Amino acid sequence: MRYSKMFGRTTKEAPHDADSVNARLLTQAGFINQLMAGVYTYLPLGLRVLNKIKTIVREEMNTLGAQEILMPALSPKEPWQKTGRWDGLDVLFKLEGAGGKEYALGATHEEVVTPLVQQYIHSYKDLPVTLYQIQDKFRNEPRAKSGLLRGREFSMKDLYSFHLTEDDLTAYYERVKGAYARIFSRCGLDALVVEASGGTFSKYSHEYQVITDSGEDIVYHCKCGWAVNREIFEGKVGDVCPSCKKGMVESHKAIEVGNIFPLKTKYSDAFGLDVTGEDGKLVRVLMGCYGIGPSRVMGSVVEVHHDERGMIWPKSVAPFHMHLITLSNKDSEVKARVDETAVELHDSFERTGIEVLWDDRDDASAGEKFADADLIGIPLRLVVSQKTLAEGCVEWKERSEPADPPPARGGVRGGGSRLVKIEDVMGEVGEWVKVE
Amino acid sequence: MRYSKMFGRTTKEAPHDADSVNARLLTQAGFINQLMAGVYTYLPLGLRVLNKIKTIVREEMNTLGAQEILMPALSPKEPWQKTGRWDGLDVLFKLEGAGGKEYALGATHEEVVTPLVQQYIHSYKDLPVTLYQIQDKFRNEPRAKSGLLRGREFSMKDLYSFHLTEDDLTAYYERVKGAYARIFSRCGLDALVVEASGGTFSKYSHEYQVITDSGEDIVYHCKCGWAVNREIFEGKVGDVCPSCKKGMVESHKAIEVGNIFPLKTKYSDAFGLDVTGEDGKLVRVLMGCYGIGPSRVMGSVVEVHHDERGMIWPKSVAPFHMHLITLSNKDSEVKARVDETAVELHDSFERTGIEVLWDDRDDASAGEKFADADLIGIPLRLVVSQKTLAEGCVEWKERSEPADPPPARGGVRGGGSRLVKIEDVMGEVGEWVKVE
Repeated sequence: MRYSKMFGRTTKEAPHDADSVNARLLTQAGFINQLMAGVYTYLPLGLRVLNKIKTIVREEMNTLGAQEILMPALSPKEPWQKTGRWDGLDVLFKLEGAGGKEYALGATHEEVVTPLVQQYIHSYKDLPVTLYQIQDKFRNEPRAKSGLLRGREFSMKDLYSFHLTEDDLTAYYERVKGAYARIFSRCGLDALVVEASGGTFSKYSHEYQVITDSGEDIVYHCKCGWAVNREIFEGKVGDVCPSCKKGMVESHKAIEVGNIFPLKTKYSDAFGLDVTGEDGKLVRVLMGCYGIGPSRVMGSVVEVHHDERGMIWPKSVAPFHMHLITLSNKDSEVKARVDETAVELHDSFERTGIEVLWDDRDDASAGEKFADADLIGIPLRLVVSQKTLAEGCVEWKERSEPADPPPARGGVRGGGSRLVKIEDVMGEVGEWVKVE
Repeated sequence: MRYSKMFGRTTKEAPHDADSVNARLLTQAGFINQLMAGVYTYLPLGLRVLNKIKTIVREEMNTLGAQEILMPALSPKEPWQKTGRWDGLDVLFKLEGAGGKEYALGATHEEVVTPLVQQYIHSYKDLPVTLYQIQDKFRNEPRAKSGLLRGREFSMKDLYSFHLTEDDLTAYYERVKGAYARIFSRCGLDALVVEASGGTFSKYSHEYQVITDSGEDIVYHCKCGWAVNREIFEGKVGDVCPSCKKGMVESHKAIEVGNIFPLKTKYSDAFGLDVTGEDGKLVRVLMGCYGIGPSRVMGSVVEVHHDERGMIWPKSVAPFHMHLITLSNKDSEVKARVDETAVELHDSFERTGIEVLWDDRDDASAGEKFADADLIGIPLRLVVSQKTLAEGCVEWKERSEPADPPPARGGVRGGGSRLVKIEDVMGEVGEWVKVE
């Protein structure tokens, strides 16, 4: 992809109302555009990241054996009344349609999925059932804020499981924990599994929390792996860990990137969701629900992986694998050679499935191109210039390396960059892409 | 995929309020589930079809060079007031959020995309720009009906193009026509390009209409390819064709599956979308918009491709390539051999990317399995049974062939079915899948 043709540009000006690192950097780098508080358009760069996160989530859900469906955002009032959430869920968007009918905009989907499953599941033989969707949710947040972290419209993966016995629910709950660990790890997030309240229906639930100073939540945890949220923590920082009895309780700010909840019969009670058991008697179905917000994961990755120059995307969710920069004076004799090399590299990479963003702009200086590459944060940067071509090379630098020193010193810029022979580049990039 | 594990079952009962073939068949076959009038959940079979249609649309948009973005469904009131559609668009869903703010739910996205482009495009050098999204739209239809044909929430691909000159807009408009022809043809639809009114801003627009008796629209057309809609037709059926001057004007009911519209400056006027021209003066940007509804395409495919037994999916958008049926008495000695053959075939097909739905149910009769396969409408059906194994074969039948005659005649059922040696099946299916 040629950057000169791509829609969405970097800007030096921070958005005036950006209250978080992810809102500022994603906006300045041209990944997202705010339509109003808590509501964003994904530009081509941002949509690529969001889709990569969704793909990772989808792969892990499919590996779990969950089946993908797609429920609507609009839903009728009645099921929300049955569960008490028409009046009880304060962030529920309500609207009126033709003929005075009242609808809710899905903030979550228990009210839709439970009656849906009820239509198809009648016998113990039909269980377990596990269904998920990746779909946009709506919440009437009084204070939408922090960019992609707390939006009014946001992407959500919601998984619902239906079981005959509590043992089966518990076993599945543990399998989901494994899938969630893989999802966050693959997205480059180090998420703590934090015990939280189970409400009135369950002893516990779990949140996945990523420690970062920009988090809204507080978690209490110990190096041994024990972690609980503020709501259920009874003690104080510095106490001996109640789990390992050795470590010390610490507290940190964190972002909740997912949660899992053994709903048990909370919603099957509301809708009377039963199946016929092996003995012919009705059995109330047990449920679990499991959420991850791909857009919030995207914001969290930025909160965790950035420096003063911009974002630093993990390879797995980066919009492109590689940022190719060409440097040459406009209309100069060398420009033809630089561009020819770049076209060959660009096309060869694309043929082998390596995604490359080529900054081919004629009207941007070297300094602007380097600053934009740092801001956009693609993990690998290759530079082709008169200097590198003189050595038969391209300059290779990973975004995670320190800042470039001022240019000079005979073509090699230092600061973590190195020269790679042009004939070796394809092979080296091919190897680099494979490393997790 | 084993049918016994799949969520969403066939039912013999037609939904009581199904007013169209697509609503009835898609519901009975377990592809979709109606939540309320005009609002459906996509079950696993239906979501597979919808996603295949979206993939075809996306591929053709990318081939056009259009860039994918994702705009939100929620939008503020102000841009809709600027274009006069806050009050003027009667199907616009409106809602109130925290703090009394009023929002619209996107029924279309000119009001979002025009101000968005305005933020990034400033010079003639930045044009043309072509952006698309595949996203769910909301329309407060007073009479939602006809299943997926006229919904309150539905999938839409909307493409917007921005140009410096009318010539450039016209040339792009013609290129989109080519892409649209490929999309409908790949989805198995024979769509007429129908001239329609251009409103006050343009001489013309075009609709893509699929002729079928269940259509709500009427098109007037001639075998030469000329076609216009009711709104602009001045004449009567039986007239000499105004285009070729030879053929005769016919009229038919039809479903609109897409439309393209040279908006020209309709929305750039509303928002003052200008760029600096080559001479330094401001130039008003010209726009085009181009829509296709993937969910409506799905409904239209069913309206066109079905018979009294069920749906007949084109290979390109079928939920699976192949429906594998095993027949054997429960716990019979032959069951183990039948299932073993089926597992081998199922796994071999999946390894080579051939999608197979295996009806492995123990509690369904042969008659039920055949009836369900006909209803679901997967294009190729393979049967493994004691009879076919006795000949070292599987039975091969395409869904487009006539109904099965009563079983008998030494294992070969006739009615378009034939026996294929087990060792040849993989190769034959591999060839069959490749044929368009």
